[in-house]
Amino acid sequence: MTDEARAFVPGHITGFFSAHPNADDPTKAGSRGGGLTLTDGVEVTVRPSTEPAVTLNGESIEVDSVETVLRTLDAGATVEAETPLPLGAGFGVSGAMALGTALATNQVFNRKLSENELVTIAHGAEVQAGTGLGDVVAQARGGIPIRLEPGGPQHNLLDGIPARARVEYLNIGQLSTAEVLSGDTDQLSEAGKKALSRVVKEPTLASFIFASRRFAREAELLTPEVTTVIEDVIEAGGQASMAMLGETVFALGTGLTDAGYDASVCATHPAGAMLK
Amino acid sequence: MTDEARAFVPGHITGFFSAHPNADDPTKAGSRGGGLTLTDGVEVTVRPSTEPAVTLNGESIEVDSVETVLRTLDAGATVEAETPLPLGAGFGVSGAMALGTALATNQVFNRKLSENELVTIAHGAEVQAGTGLGDVVAQARGGIPIRLEPGGPQHNLLDGIPARARVEYLNIGQLSTAEVLSGDTDQLSEAGKKALSRVVKEPTLASFIFASRRFAREAELLTPEVTTVIEDVIEAGGQASMAMLGETVFALGTGLTDAGYDASVCATHPAGAMLK
Repeated sequence: MTDEARAFVPGHITGFFSAHPNADDPTKAGSRGGGLTLTDGVEVTVRPSTEPAVTLNGESIEVDSVETVLRTLDAGATVEAETPLPLGAGFGVSGAMALGTALATNQVFNRKLSENELVTIAHGAEVQAGTGLGDVVAQARGGIPIRLEPGGPQHNLLDGIPARARVEYLNIGQLSTAEVLSGDTDQLSEAGKKALSRVVKEPTLASFIFASRRFAREAELLTPEVTTVIEDVIEAGGQASMAMLGETVFALGTGLTDAGYDASVCATHPAGAMLK
Repeated sequence: MTDEARAFVPGHITGFFSAHPNADDPTKAGSRGGGLTLTDGVEVTVRPSTEPAVTLNGESIEVDSVETVLRTLDAGATVEAETPLPLGAGFGVSGAMALGTALATNQVFNRKLSENELVTIAHGAEVQAGTGLGDVVAQARGGIPIRLEPGGPQHNLLDGIPARARVEYLNIGQLSTAEVLSGDTDQLSEAGKKALSRVVKEPTLASFIFASRRFAREAELLTPEVTTVIEDVIEAGGQASMAMLGETVFALGTGLTDAGYDASVCATHPAGAMLK
């Protein structure tokens, strides 16, 4: 057992998705969809401790998926997460914390699990917590993931858009993923399937952002503020959509800046989650 | 169409493998096995041209898999590859050139293919050329890939060892992958299956290097020089094995340096192939 281990997990913005629950097996549940992994992510440090505690940017926090991961790996530890990303805003912060905890805990407690096993544990923990369906597998992959089939690594099928981009984002408020996912997701999933088939036909950034915007509209998830910001970006000649699920607008290139917004700037992350 | 596109593809050392040919479909052929992707890799630049030409470190070269990729993508182009890695020495340079050419050509010619499609094209081209069975899919993934099922992305199953390491290597001479693969591979594949099951049971760097060394011995691929260098590393307290397929010794950490060799130094690469 070493003293500590650290992992970096990229943030993940989902542009569109369809929900695929599975009451019997959380490792088979998940989502189809498309998103961007981000150079802005979460750094997770795990240290063995007889007094377990979880912090995010120095403040104590309860994250169900993180606790499930620690329990599954039979590890008493403190988990410190640091991130520039807002929580509950559609960046996959809870998924990143779960996955980073799995990778770092395996290392520090010498659990000898494989990457797929660790991703499966983190994915299942997220699904059980109701806080995400596709972030963990996307964050494990990196790049611009297309989730063709739902579930953990033993069940899913992933592809990617071969591109890199500067990404800007503007968080307006929070949305509860758990609330949306526990409601009626039929209309949302119908829109998600159409968006996916569009991006599979043409796996480019342009078709991704177009499909994402159409999905947000058809799934009726746009808030008035988000609508206004997206329209401003388009008027300024840019491309933007809404992060699923958060009251957040993301844009490619300099879309938000060109429209006069004071946006955060990062880029797509070419790699998946990694030990430091 | 843009002026040029560039891709970086990590090098890949295979520690052990079993061969799984498929006479009908090169995208189903491949290998099971385990390896290390490397921060030393190949940078590939593709430019549209009516006078196609391929160079490696400035010198003209014929690489069958690269020509197949260009033909498949219907692209007339020059391909410039730059690498610190030796060719024909077990680092997957030809696979990296094929994959880098696929990624950069898709970009520069706006071919709108997905990452899986481009990996499939490069993998199939390598298999057809007989120059590799598992490098391309490993190089597309990054990290420390375990190839559980053979073939391109539509058929294979990959996992990984969650670790990072400094890697040293010493090239002694060349070995023809095509010659070994076209010979009797039964004994080799038997040894490869045993090595894989060992690493699946315990996916750690220690078990990887142990399984690799045993594979090299059982497959009877060790040359006298390679055997001497590996023994020297072990005597100095380190861990080393032979790169498949090349007359090359690789070691974890400072294994070769500690044994008094003037080795090249790099590290495992946390990401797969990427556009620059």
